[in-house]
Amino acid sequence: MKKLLFVYLLLIGLFVIYIYNYQMESSTKRAWNENELVGNMDETYVMVTFLVGIDYWKRALKGFEDAAESLNVSVEYRGSTQYDVHEEMTVLEQVIAKNPAGIAISTMDPEALNPVIDKAVEAGIPVVMFDADAPESKAYSFLGTDNYKAGVEAAHKMADLVNKSGEVGVITLPHQLNHQERTKGFQDTISKEYPEMKVVSINDGRGDQVISKEEAEAMIAANPNLVGIFVTEANGGVGVGQAIVSNNLKDSIKIISFDTDKGTLDMIKDDVISATIAQGTWEMGYWSLQFLFHLQHGIYDQDRKNAPLPRNVDTGVTIVTKENVDSYYPQ
Amino acid sequence: MKKLLFVYLLLIGLFVIYIYNYQMESSTKRAWNENELVGNMDETYVMVTFLVGIDYWKRALKGFEDAAESLNVSVEYRGSTQYDVHEEMTVLEQVIAKNPAGIAISTMDPEALNPVIDKAVEAGIPVVMFDADAPESKAYSFLGTDNYKAGVEAAHKMADLVNKSGEVGVITLPHQLNHQERTKGFQDTISKEYPEMKVVSINDGRGDQVISKEEAEAMIAANPNLVGIFVTEANGGVGVGQAIVSNNLKDSIKIISFDTDKGTLDMIKDDVISATIAQGTWEMGYWSLQFLFHLQHGIYDQDRKNAPLPRNVDTGVTIVTKENVDSYYPQ
Repeated sequence: MKKLLFVYLLLIGLFVIYIYNYQMESSTKRAWNENELVGNMDETYVMVTFLVGIDYWKRALKGFEDAAESLNVSVEYRGSTQYDVHEEMTVLEQVIAKNPAGIAISTMDPEALNPVIDKAVEAGIPVVMFDADAPESKAYSFLGTDNYKAGVEAAHKMADLVNKSGEVGVITLPHQLNHQERTKGFQDTISKEYPEMKVVSINDGRGDQVISKEEAEAMIAANPNLVGIFVTEANGGVGVGQAIVSNNLKDSIKIISFDTDKGTLDMIKDDVISATIAQGTWEMGYWSLQFLFHLQHGIYDQDRKNAPLPRNVDTGVTIVTKENVDSYYPQ
Repeated sequence: MKKLLFVYLLLIGLFVIYIYNYQMESSTKRAWNENELVGNMDETYVMVTFLVGIDYWKRALKGFEDAAESLNVSVEYRGSTQYDVHEEMTVLEQVIAKNPAGIAISTMDPEALNPVIDKAVEAGIPVVMFDADAPESKAYSFLGTDNYKAGVEAAHKMADLVNKSGEVGVITLPHQLNHQERTKGFQDTISKEYPEMKVVSINDGRGDQVISKEEAEAMIAANPNLVGIFVTEANGGVGVGQAIVSNNLKDSIKIISFDTDKGTLDMIKDDVISATIAQGTWEMGYWSLQFLFHLQHGIYDQDRKNAPLPRNVDTGVTIVTKENVDSYYPQ
């Protein structure tokens, strides 16, 4: 009997320890959820873009997913398949109808989506813009490249490539704001900081490979001393690369392009394009989700309810050359 | 004996469940620490400013502390007691010597601290700048007010206060970059968007209450139709407020000031100053610590090791009026 009593006591003791431990664990967890940056897997944050699935968005989505993993929340990716603002609007309407925990949007039109964006914000859904802003909308924040500064970086790299001396040109989209800014940052920096360099020509490549090739050839014919061309978008960069190759000018004219499409990266490997400007797309996605999470969880200066987030984030650029090109191929 | 055997089996079963649970818990916790945004209390992040302890830094420090609580890390606040760049440099050297987990610095000189900042970065210490940048240093990021945009906001508010019509003036520090930017944002917006308004005078208040009062009186005498004055810093704002009161012009001239010092807030309560521009100091502190934590823990796009963070964050402004002034007094 005594033995049995001992076993019973031991048994009861164990139960008490077990239950005590169990409660400790759950109270720790509860405190944790209140103070720490930990969400819930049924909180779903949605990324919305146009031209869904193209390579350009992959790194942004990766950043968005990486942040979701850190914060223990879920993500979805939606968007228009075409370059069609009405389709993007319809997709956004469908996303809003599901009342998600937050939406990060890149818009193909700086104004057309405003009524839908504002509707989401008014319904209490956190919204931030990334890569391409809708500045007059009620979205809380914009995370993207400061295009003027990207042009400044391109100018410094060009100066480096041509030993700070000689005539250079730009092939761009002169009617689009982001390309105007890239061109202006480039021009201003060359004229202010490199007295031995001169921007002699700015041509319209229309974002087209064939037209950009023709414009590059015309520019070279008109400026026989040209030592470099800055191309502000990727299709044009490949076109200019082709012009340089077919005219056998690989050694005398340096090209700096924009973004990290496969065609551009291949031409960097082949020494046709010397460098390209990579945007911080992972950063756009990662910090977009962080911002949406902070809005959803009310983690901000409570005095500034009308402006709870930093208004503008310049996600920065990096320069890709033959040395680091391998890590920019999609994995 | 059978009973005893049953008890023993139960006992063994319980032990197995207990140990199984224990291991589950600890393996969950280990996975947690790898993936989630949770630091260690012996990770110490340091905020360094000049004029340590003045009201202006309090909200920034609060943001820094709030982020530290969320991320489960420690913070310290250090700085020079005087407006003395050599003292700030000495303090920064002392902070670096302790090898902290990260440093957020606001510098009183955009260049003087660069060698010390660069030394910290080269020693592997994460560094970000906030409020006042050292743009040529190796710090990874800057978080602060876009002063041009703050001037734009001030212009819209002024237009609102004077019914989009009339002559306005600016009292500023014409030789300091941040004040030049505030003035330019204000001027550009008035001239582009408000055809019935005109900036008729820009005077130097030297950041001094008495001089700003005198300059306001001179401006009013020279421009009898003046309906508003934008003052780009807080001492001047109080001086201009005194000028308005002593000349009995409270009803005819609207003042917009900058920052949220007690003197400014009191004048808003008394209807002397109509509005003031509050900077996102909490945001600067909060996101500085988040950024430092991400650097320390290697949470960034591994392809962009040379630019792991957004380069520039505009923490934004809010407009303080009589309606929301109470929440801006230090608590």
